[in-house]
Amino acid sequence: MNFLEERIAKDGIVKEGNVLKVDSFLNHQIDIALFNQMGQEWKKRFEGKPINKILTIEASGIGIACIAAQHFGVPVVFAKKSKSINMEGEMYVAEVESFTHRCKNQVIVSKKFLGPEDHVLIIDDFLANGCALQGLIGIVQSAGATVEGIGIAVEKGFQAGGRMIRNLGYQLESLAIVESMDATDGNISFREQ
Amino acid sequence: MNFLEERIAKDGIVKEGNVLKVDSFLNHQIDIALFNQMGQEWKKRFEGKPINKILTIEASGIGIACIAAQHFGVPVVFAKKSKSINMEGEMYVAEVESFTHRCKNQVIVSKKFLGPEDHVLIIDDFLANGCALQGLIGIVQSAGATVEGIGIAVEKGFQAGGRMIRNLGYQLESLAIVESMDATDGNISFREQ
Repeated sequence: MNFLEERIAKDGIVKEGNVLKVDSFLNHQIDIALFNQMGQEWKKRFEGKPINKILTIEASGIGIACIAAQHFGVPVVFAKKSKSINMEGEMYVAEVESFTHRCKNQVIVSKKFLGPEDHVLIIDDFLANGCALQGLIGIVQSAGATVEGIGIAVEKGFQAGGRMIRNLGYQLESLAIVESMDATDGNISFREQ
Repeated sequence: MNFLEERIAKDGIVKEGNVLKVDSFLNHQIDIALFNQMGQEWKKRFEGKPINKILTIEASGIGIACIAAQHFGVPVVFAKKSKSINMEGEMYVAEVESFTHRCKNQVIVSKKFLGPEDHVLIIDDFLANGCALQGLIGIVQSAGATVEGIGIAVEKGFQAGGRMIRNLGYQLESLAIVESMDATDGNISFREQ
């Protein structure tokens, strides 16, 4: 097991309905040293890629992206999930349908911050069905920019998102891929990488 | 002018209705080097305080808090604005009324991540009327924890939030305090610190 798998095995909590709670270190309370290890690992896995920007989505992607950005020396842009009072001007908007929540969400990035010159690493905390990620990729495409890779902390390997993204040819680097988990005994098994 | 005031003067955009757009470096696109300067400055201003945790609120506080946390060597907890499917167990909930939006918001932190042993630095990007901040302070109080200080990137000095928080006796360190701004000529004036 790598450092993140070990941490999930130690502190992750499996709940009924395929819910994996990692809120003690990843998406409510944040272990900054762990985020730095994740950033280092992505830097290694995307070595040689001409990444000049990291794109993520609010809210829990932001911390991971900011710490990772220090390892790449690039700025972060975070997509918003709804229009705020302060957004104006031209925007890229992706409508994404959530399989699990049966609702449509908007993913929004100002056109000022993404263009054809950008080589983008997309970072997020979770990948399950991949709806948010599809929206982010769609926005990078709309901008004429290049997706250099996708870094995910925890992928639910038993859901469709990861396979679909890999089938499309993207370099998807999930630091932990959960193959299965069991709410009755709390066991989590990871895909060999 | 300090480094943040200079950056606001250079890249901030004043809009009608007392809106200050800093989305090119602070809350949509993020300049990580600037966040590190902010973290350093807060570390200096809160020297000697026994801070063991940083508390912020989603979404735009998270990046600032995570980078600042590196300078303090402490974990970050970010409050959520609405209950997510993955939140369960006991929670601190503060109901805060927004003056500007005339609506009530909930600020939520799991009881697991804040307790009487915690000495908290609250970090956020903006302070205007201070509604979100009041909710965060309320939650620290409910937890029996101690507010050691409050670090804000940009305070709108012409709105009531900052004065109220200082009147309550908190050490509030806003790195830039906007005294006035003019949408017709784009001028921004800062309070001497």
